[in-house]
Amino acid sequence: MSIITLLTDFGTEDEYVGLMKGVILSIDPSITIVDISHRIDAQDIVQAAFAIHSAYRYFPEGTVHLIVVDPGVGTGRDLLALEMKKQFFIAPDNGVLSLLMKEEDFISLTRISNPEYFLATVSRTFHGRDIIAPVGAHIAGGLELEKLGAGIGVTEVVCLDNLQARILEDGELIGRIIAIDHFGNLISNIHSQKLAELYKNGEVKKMRIKIGAHTISGLSETYDCVALQAPLALIGSRGYLEISVNRSNAAMALNVRKGDSVRVSV
Amino acid sequence: MSIITLLTDFGTEDEYVGLMKGVILSIDPSITIVDISHRIDAQDIVQAAFAIHSAYRYFPEGTVHLIVVDPGVGTGRDLLALEMKKQFFIAPDNGVLSLLMKEEDFISLTRISNPEYFLATVSRTFHGRDIIAPVGAHIAGGLELEKLGAGIGVTEVVCLDNLQARILEDGELIGRIIAIDHFGNLISNIHSQKLAELYKNGEVKKMRIKIGAHTISGLSETYDCVALQAPLALIGSRGYLEISVNRSNAAMALNVRKGDSVRVSV
Amino acid sequence: MSIITLLTDFGTEDEYVGLMKGVILSIDPSITIVDISHRIDAQDIVQAAFAIHSAYRYFPEGTVHLIVVDPGVGTGRDLLALEMKKQFFIAPDNGVLSLLMKEEDFISLTRISNPEYFLATVSRTFHGRDIIAPVGAHIAGGLELEKLGAGIGVTEVVCLDNLQARILEDGELIGRIIAIDHFGNLISNIHSQKLAELYKNGEVKKMRIKIGAHTISGLSETYDCVALQAPLALIGSRGYLEISVNRSNAAMALNVRKGDSVRVSV
Repeated sequence: MSIITLLTDFGTEDEYVGLMKGVILSIDPSITIVDISHRIDAQDIVQAAFAIHSAYRYFPEGTVHLIVVDPGVGTGRDLLALEMKKQFFIAPDNGVLSLLMKEEDFISLTRISNPEYFLATVSRTFHGRDIIAPVGAHIAGGLELEKLGAGIGVTEVVCLDNLQARILEDGELIGRIIAIDHFGNLISNIHSQKLAELYKNGEVKKMRIKIGAHTISGLSETYDCVALQAPLALIGSRGYLEISVNRSNAAMALNVRKGDSVRVSV
Repeated sequence: MSIITLLTDFGTEDEYVGLMKGVILSIDPSITIVDISHRIDAQDIVQAAFAIHSAYRYFPEGTVHLIVVDPGVGTGRDLLALEMKKQFFIAPDNGVLSLLMKEEDFISLTRISNPEYFLATVSRTFHGRDIIAPVGAHIAGGLELEKLGAGIGVTEVVCLDNLQARILEDGELIGRIIAIDHFGNLISNIHSQKLAELYKNGEVKKMRIKIGAHTISGLSETYDCVALQAPLALIGSRGYLEISVNRSNAAMALNVRKGDSVRVSV
Repeated sequence: MSIITLLTDFGTEDEYVGLMKGVILSIDPSITIVDISHRIDAQDIVQAAFAIHSAYRYFPEGTVHLIVVDPGVGTGRDLLALEMKKQFFIAPDNGVLSLLMKEEDFISLTRISNPEYFLATVSRTFHGRDIIAPVGAHIAGGLELEKLGAGIGVTEVVCLDNLQARILEDGELIGRIIAIDHFGNLISNIHSQKLAELYKNGEVKKMRIKIGAHTISGLSETYDCVALQAPLALIGSRGYLEISVNRSNAAMALNVRKGDSVRVSV
């Protein structure tokens, strides 16, 4: 009853995701495979870092998460295996695990080097199929991370800074849009905890949130708290500040793109 | 060997569907999860109502269907659990179950209120993950609907009328396009049984079907019964009247949109 | 622990793929179903032929592959069941199995005719659901192909010629783009073995590859071997020559479409 999840930027047009599943099931046909998403924007490591950090907590202990957003495939970049909160994460050493490595219950990190657990032939362009999938299947089957390669310190791997929103000298909080979802909701990197630290309860109600040419006042509890087609801000299901438009597509209605800044002040 | 299906308008860009699966498998990792579709048009309750009504009969007894097309999430709308023909359906009380509740073997309907079967924290914007997924997993595991909340009559919930085609005074049958599929086929709400009631066998052959600026004569048995690029009408795999163009995309070729009317007369 | 894979041009908007899964699980709920892709270009038999030929070898013995790219559905075309290398393939008799039937370990081919293994009602437009899915589930459960219908010789079925690249009189190798992947990589029908037969090691380095208005010199080992935004050629993960642009979308950057020719010479 082992579970492996997949998070990639492969899209679903091609056979690439299916091949990873074939490799996994060839090693252990009893594994349950769950797609988290295959539509991370191509090579967007930051978007993937937030997605896996939001997702993993909804999976049971023992789950193995395979993250293949890998612009450096075929170059010298390493592959890593991380154990944290009794879950496992396999990914390129490109920063996509940054948010997970900052969690308190971080346990161990391994540089994957033992070809015993790879496919017999390893291509230069598809390590997801040839290394990550078979290694993931073996971990799901109980393989200890130390069998994969040497332990490694968190300071020795790529760690992205500035992923979270930061506070300017004038007290303004500045973040940015990390992802735009299927409905056009604008998902920022401003966590509800950061808002709670900065502002007292009363202040949250009069917060001003600036995005593009728009200013939104206060936090809504749900989409229908404002008029139809009106913009609103709320704490989304990820726990981060999101900008939406009631019954409409905020990205289009507000003309906002991924990477655009969000500024919060009282 | 329990089965849960998912029908949503979430798209597949985001982690939302994957999180629902994580929640389900955290409760029972032996459940098999099947995606019916995640590309119902955003908030299109009618399209979803027809899709689940067409789909459920191909699944085995005991299947639990989760339908999350939920424009009212976070407002006061209820969530419902329906048992029918030894299958189960969980959905918002917004009419998406309307066609199912009209089936003869309808058994029971429950308003979901018992938080014992929800996630510990329930967000205001993602009841699919926080309520519908865990409740579905518990039902798949044998939980009786009465444990979820009070039984409720079918007259007490939202029921959409006028979903099916209707007959005008002059005997003309008027329906509309409910969905446009991946191939551009135009799927109407005119069921083959309604045609069989209205017209004798000989009449079906000379039926005139008007859609947009086009008139099609008679029913074809299959796509290749007409010339290449010619429009045709047939009873599609759902059992409803569909308009196609042989080896082409009918929506584009005929310039028809979802919601456009279809008129049938002899 | 049987595995069934699905390769179709159905897209994922509609319930069609989900219904096939429902039919399979109604026959045997323990089957694991893997999507290879549902986004083969509509009715592109050649693209599907290469996709399944590239994919099957990553699945375990006993896997049953269902291929539903079927422009002739509802006409008189046959459905075939093929056994090869201890795997099984069910598909329309339209050439989609051509590359598989040329493999050395080809074992047997059957024309499917026994309605005992079909759904009770067979539509004219959705044999994937009504015939291919239930037949696949029975094969996954151990049904012998001879129970499905009469054995048939490979010369009696549709076999597409000219799928592979060919050598012109002047020694130039001419192929074409079979598929464009999610990243815009251009996948040709020129196999690495054909290059190895034609050119000595030293020659491969000075090969000239002409595509559209562009000429690329030599083979790269990986994407990062050339400057950013520069075009390159490499042997892709399928084992075929691919044209890419480093960290960009080759189809857009080079203005190349599926079907365009690729010419290789020294």
